[in-house]
Amino acid sequence: MKQSGVGSEKIIRRKRDGELEYLPDDLTVEEPLEIRVGNQVVATTMRTPGHDEELAAGFLLSEAILRDRGDIQKISIGSENRIDVDLAPGMKPELKSAQRFGTISSSCGICGKDSIEAIRQKFPAIAATDFRIDLELLLSLPDRLRQEQGDFARTGGIHAAGVFDSSGQARIVREDIGRHNAVDKAIGRALLDRLVPLDRHILLVSGRLSFEIVQKALAAGLPIVAAVSAPSTLAVSIARESNQTLIAFLRPPSFNIYSHIERIVLNQAP
Amino acid sequence: MKQSGVGSEKIIRRKRDGELEYLPDDLTVEEPLEIRVGNQVVATTMRTPGHDEELAAGFLLSEAILRDRGDIQKISIGSENRIDVDLAPGMKPELKSAQRFGTISSSCGICGKDSIEAIRQKFPAIAATDFRIDLELLLSLPDRLRQEQGDFARTGGIHAAGVFDSSGQARIVREDIGRHNAVDKAIGRALLDRLVPLDRHILLVSGRLSFEIVQKALAAGLPIVAAVSAPSTLAVSIARESNQTLIAFLRPPSFNIYSHIERIVLNQAP
Repeated sequence: MKQSGVGSEKIIRRKRDGELEYLPDDLTVEEPLEIRVGNQVVATTMRTPGHDEELAAGFLLSEAILRDRGDIQKISIGSENRIDVDLAPGMKPELKSAQRFGTISSSCGICGKDSIEAIRQKFPAIAATDFRIDLELLLSLPDRLRQEQGDFARTGGIHAAGVFDSSGQARIVREDIGRHNAVDKAIGRALLDRLVPLDRHILLVSGRLSFEIVQKALAAGLPIVAAVSAPSTLAVSIARESNQTLIAFLRPPSFNIYSHIERIVLNQAP
Repeated sequence: MKQSGVGSEKIIRRKRDGELEYLPDDLTVEEPLEIRVGNQVVATTMRTPGHDEELAAGFLLSEAILRDRGDIQKISIGSENRIDVDLAPGMKPELKSAQRFGTISSSCGICGKDSIEAIRQKFPAIAATDFRIDLELLLSLPDRLRQEQGDFARTGGIHAAGVFDSSGQARIVREDIGRHNAVDKAIGRALLDRLVPLDRHILLVSGRLSFEIVQKALAAGLPIVAAVSAPSTLAVSIARESNQTLIAFLRPPSFNIYSHIERIVLNQAP
């Protein structure tokens, strides 16, 4: 098993001066993982191997199949690309039909109008608290995320998700070829460490913000969600409804705020 | 229905000089689409509305549920976020269990080791032909793709997929919040226009190359697949096995070739 997440292939590179060179190159590993609860397959995903138990825990949290560490009796790695989750005795998870997880796209585990409505009801909105962060802390996060990533990741083939505490310290950083997987791994680690709800933490993702990412953050109780790139319309509307602060295009010194600006303490008058 | 793919939201922007401004901003629309064959839901996806019949056709081609235009009797838009495909009389599609489409990630419609093996057998490798393209044509493609995209797309929130002919002309360009959807729409358009197999064409995608993208290209018979960003390990291995030329990090004047370089006519000696 390639747990490092990096594979090497021989390639031909055309350099800027037009010269060709033949060399080995690092690539992000992509392999399937089957997630089972009891004996039932609830999902399969193409992911970068490593931290599979976190991926499973985070996915099941996002799907409202479990809520905290106590709901899990055991997580075990089955065969090479399979992970088995046993729930606590007496738990009767509401395993939806597999169709619920059906998707062909990059942005979805929860699809269809009915499902979106269902998920909005399932996770309560983030409670109003005194949790605030300073502007300067927000602006420091992209650099902090990059510092936690490997050299390989910085060069481009992988997504990152970081959970930061109120002092701006990176508590959990995970990477994956799929951006939803990176988030699942990060919130899954938090769940396994009994840190959920992450109600005084910030999620930063290296890519875009889809509906799904915002909803995963909501499942983990994250009040502030930030991204280096663009959000979708549905990501913005769920954040507004769920009392989440949504920030995108976070490219210091610039950024956009789409919802609930009150959690960002702006030292500078507009 | 927001067919334009662009929605507008009021946001707060922090400019580079630290000033805040309040303004409406364009966002990529993300909404669910349910794809039905007969009365059976085969997939749902989060997509950018528009070209939904192409998305459905391209998806079903990728899934080997249909092979050419003649397999489709009718494609009709059901309710707002539903599309119905009726197959030609007598066609008994091999509709796999919904689980086959199950995924939680950005990169997959076909998951699990068994499924990957199945798909590799299902689509024959690209036949060896005399199809070649010049280096200069290859280097011109990213600019040509950008020219076909709207101003909004160039600024970041959306993926593009372009099908180019042997003279470098863009024949089909489609955009979507999900990169697999953009490819499905492009090859779906080709299928509806009876252009499949696209055995003398090139696919260029604006983002990364996952296994799934390469496999969709294979389903459409595309011999050359190029991307502006990184490929995964599995993308490279399927391209090698399927006699597809795979190019990534196509950022003129540089690029990497991962497989079957013989289709690129290099005017310059290495």
